[in-house]
Amino acid sequence: MTAGGSGDAAPKGRAVPPIKQAFGEQIAEGFHTIYDGELLHSERSAFQKIDVYEHPHFGRVLTLDDLIQTTEQDEFTYHEMLVHPALCGLERVERVLIIGGGDGGTLRHVLMHGPTNVVMCEIDDAVVRVCQEFLPSVAAGAFEDPRAHVVFADGAAFAAEHKDAFDAIIVDGSDAVGPATVLFSEAFYGSCRRALRNGGVFVSQTGSPMFQADEFLLAQRNLAPVFDVVEPYLGYVPTYPGGLWSYTAAGPGLSSVPPDVVRARLDARGITTRFYTPEVHRAAFALPAFVQELRAPVPQR
Amino acid sequence: MTAGGSGDAAPKGRAVPPIKQAFGEQIAEGFHTIYDGELLHSERSAFQKIDVYEHPHFGRVLTLDDLIQTTEQDEFTYHEMLVHPALCGLERVERVLIIGGGDGGTLRHVLMHGPTNVVMCEIDDAVVRVCQEFLPSVAAGAFEDPRAHVVFADGAAFAAEHKDAFDAIIVDGSDAVGPATVLFSEAFYGSCRRALRNGGVFVSQTGSPMFQADEFLLAQRNLAPVFDVVEPYLGYVPTYPGGLWSYTAAGPGLSSVPPDVVRARLDARGITTRFYTPEVHRAAFALPAFVQELRAPVPQR
Repeated sequence: MTAGGSGDAAPKGRAVPPIKQAFGEQIAEGFHTIYDGELLHSERSAFQKIDVYEHPHFGRVLTLDDLIQTTEQDEFTYHEMLVHPALCGLERVERVLIIGGGDGGTLRHVLMHGPTNVVMCEIDDAVVRVCQEFLPSVAAGAFEDPRAHVVFADGAAFAAEHKDAFDAIIVDGSDAVGPATVLFSEAFYGSCRRALRNGGVFVSQTGSPMFQADEFLLAQRNLAPVFDVVEPYLGYVPTYPGGLWSYTAAGPGLSSVPPDVVRARLDARGITTRFYTPEVHRAAFALPAFVQELRAPVPQR
Repeated sequence: MTAGGSGDAAPKGRAVPPIKQAFGEQIAEGFHTIYDGELLHSERSAFQKIDVYEHPHFGRVLTLDDLIQTTEQDEFTYHEMLVHPALCGLERVERVLIIGGGDGGTLRHVLMHGPTNVVMCEIDDAVVRVCQEFLPSVAAGAFEDPRAHVVFADGAAFAAEHKDAFDAIIVDGSDAVGPATVLFSEAFYGSCRRALRNGGVFVSQTGSPMFQADEFLLAQRNLAPVFDVVEPYLGYVPTYPGGLWSYTAAGPGLSSVPPDVVRARLDARGITTRFYTPEVHRAAFALPAFVQELRAPVPQR
């Protein structure tokens, strides 16, 4: 080896290896998750930092402002439990509004229910572009479906412009920090109620009831004055903080939809699932005692 | 400041600060949890390395061979779901055998059901000693209860020595690696069946169905030839790998115990809970589709 020689340099023409990089989240004080990944893409949009990693277990991973939003391996756990309980609660699904959901997974699952028209209102077009390039399996072609219409706009403003327009509104937004905070406000929930047809259903992801109790409670408190029936339910998303994840539905009572009705609707719509089942539908509304205790008393309307 | 001076030295008599130390676990390839803690105690027993940390969120944490077993903050999620479904399935609880359970949390929860006699068979007396010194709130005096009898012995051998002796056998062991592997064997399950009275119930923790599918499957496969009814069910333990946690019950069918019967038994026994409820009992047996698919076909008996 000669000093200053090229012994350690990569041969000409060999691809530069991807950047190995750890990423992760703080879940509670002194409690973190760490992922070993390769950073494939990073950019700053007008709204947030967008990163994509390749991970040995979870496949492609999307983070927004360093918080994990979607992974190829576990997206089914989140999208099935966000979409199917609400839409299996409806006898017919015609018009659906999705707020957020830039990775297209929610859109894909909504389309399974046979709607005539789905509007997806996402604030950040860069998220859609990046996901289509790096995680195309999550939308799996949903954006090309002629029933799907994507609007790049503020979801709260968009909802406020519509009346009696949708059978379901599905909020697939970030946590209640930064630009997504408005999606946990009473004003937004009121707009959604007015934008729903009679008998329409609202559902939103509402954070970890164990590690983000404030976010969970904010949703319960601000939905209670707006909707007659507000029903939080639980699922499991391994890459979300703590794993145990809450969603909150409002409108018609979803918890009382019998398993045989759910089964009939899944079958009629030709939907196969990897997480959600008719029995999981009912079970999801059974809250552990500590989650029941978190819920604010519902004010008289 | 003079060079070599004592400006940064601790004043005489000030206690040495505890050792700050990160600990944690690998959950999957490239996926880890990290905890910031203070190591309070470390020793090697005849069976394993035993450590206790002080953690800012989870309080005192017990690890065995560096795997988290118990924390003061979340032990209720595990112990309630291990004990209450099985014992609320019994009209009367007289004699109970616990295998493992050195922290005393299972013993405490079993005693709530009014048994006349509980034997806890733990292989490692050092675990009981360390937990009594550093995590006494988990047992909360259970070891002093006159109905509780602690035996330091091999649980599999102990079970094999008994016939028609117990109304319930509860296995609160480590994962199916190292000394606890025998607690997932068909021979052990057969011993337990023979040690149970007619109508008695068996339950064991059986790992994460998402990240330890091998362990979950091992239990299903080895229980199926031994018991007529084998029912896995799910709970949530934030400090266990992945959070979603499985238990498997065998003997009488627990999933069909009606919520009003569970409620009546909890009330009659004066049990209050933070996780388990009559509705959670039923819901826990509703397995997500990917867990159902994991289960091996049950052989004909």
